[in-house]
Amino acid sequence: MTPEQSIVASAVHAWKLNLERADKFFSGLSEQQLLTEVAPAKNRLIYLWGHLIAVHDGMMPLLGLGERLHAELDAAFLTGADKTVADLPSGAELKRLWDEVNERLLTGFGRFTAADWAQRHSVVSDQDFAANPLRNRLAILLSRTAHVAYHLGQAQLAHK
Amino acid sequence: MTPEQSIVASAVHAWKLNLERADKFFSGLSEQQLLTEVAPAKNRLIYLWGHLIAVHDGMMPLLGLGERLHAELDAAFLTGADKTVADLPSGAELKRLWDEVNERLLTGFGRFTAADWAQRHSVVSDQDFAANPLRNRLAILLSRTAHVAYHLGQAQLAHK
Repeated sequence: MTPEQSIVASAVHAWKLNLERADKFFSGLSEQQLLTEVAPAKNRLIYLWGHLIAVHDGMMPLLGLGERLHAELDAAFLTGADKTVADLPSGAELKRLWDEVNERLLTGFGRFTAADWAQRHSVVSDQDFAANPLRNRLAILLSRTAHVAYHLGQAQLAHK
Repeated sequence: MTPEQSIVASAVHAWKLNLERADKFFSGLSEQQLLTEVAPAKNRLIYLWGHLIAVHDGMMPLLGLGERLHAELDAAFLTGADKTVADLPSGAELKRLWDEVNERLLTGFGRFTAADWAQRHSVVSDQDFAANPLRNRLAILLSRTAHVAYHLGQAQLAHK
């Protein structure tokens, strides 16, 4: 394994580790537990889970892995705050969406070489990327890895 | 910039971004605010800040960047739970330690090449590293980046 390969594999591994922690946490919750707030008057667990799915779904076009699968999640979990949409998917449905989106991402990541990760992500222009080569696909992966950890830290506070 | 350089620089940049967010949050708190719990009966903000400093201090030997500077923090912030040690450093003192530890780490990171990041970290043996080359220094950086984000997510819940 070259340093380049080792480094890229480590970044994908860190993503997977954080996803596995989140999966273990959220997949084990009952419908009732999903309605728990992480702290008084803060987001409910169901919102955090749906939010993570919507954000991960949005990584596909950013990383050149195809169109989004579930833009219908945005109103309840991304553009709107928690409790502004009454009709939410069940825990079983969220688990299905979570697995679908994350498996598709992981399949895409498995095909990326180091050079692919170092390419610009789709929202930055060629010109801006030339000025700042750190606006690459790996930066998206690292940012979304921290994003999972950020909300998982909150979610754990609601744990018994 | 080669793909290898771009990828390593992106990982260090993600660390810096998360540290800057944490610095902005914790450095702005009064002594009184530092005593706020992130949720009822959960850790106080002062504990999370001290905990991050102790964990970052522990990265130095792990990454071959020298001995720890502040092992005296462990009793209050790492091995013990919050509220088990009465006499804690002030916010001003924590800010000084936070800056000292993180600046020293960043200086060390600035000297690491991709090959340095791909080397084993100090706790894994040569044999175990041969079996799993992802137990490298970069894995420590990525893990600790997620760790900052995890606790920052909790800390933000105490924000007004």
